[in-house]
Amino acid sequence: MTRLEDAARADALAWAEARGWAHDGERDAITKTFRFKDFAQAFGWMTRIAIVADKMDHHPEWANVYNRVEVTLVTHDANGLTELDMTLARAMEDAAA
Amino acid sequence: MTRLEDAARADALAWAEARGWAHDGERDAITKTFRFKDFAQAFGWMTRIAIVADKMDHHPEWANVYNRVEVTLVTHDANGLTELDMTLARAMEDAAA
Repeated sequence: MTRLEDAARADALAWAEARGWAHDGERDAITKTFRFKDFAQAFGWMTRIAIVADKMDHHPEWANVYNRVEVTLVTHDANGLTELDMTLARAMEDAAA
Repeated sequence: MTRLEDAARADALAWAEARGWAHDGERDAITKTFRFKDFAQAFGWMTRIAIVADKMDHHPEWANVYNRVEVTLVTHDANGLTELDMTLARAMEDAAA
């Protein structure tokens, strides 16, 4: 899995930024804070994503406090964003919708 | 729910520190990083704790990266440690054992 480059990279970042993700240039990661009604909604979302992530063998960095989940996506082996991160980001958006 | 004081506080911190928790004096919180075999084990543990926490209506601050879960316990309403934090800490230790 190689880092996104050129047009694929620009398209991915445009898609992410339109949905409230920020790009961390130092790590070449994307980050977003998802907010839910309460803890049960937040953890339920995390559980859906955990199953997707483990099946992909590609895991988020995430932190939860009550109804908030702060997510960072990056592919450590590639030192930056890959298609795996975008697939997981799409799953997160779909599950939060 | 009031902050732990005096002997109850000393006992609670001694119990926690013997199990690898650190005391954050600034927040009067306790913190620990739990490590598991893999993501599924880590998230399975989180799920058990999530159910306990939501039933207590007392939630951890926690961050997960693959097989690690960094936990902070504090009672915001009390600006420090209470018996709720110790109950949740015991549940975490039991579920990780």
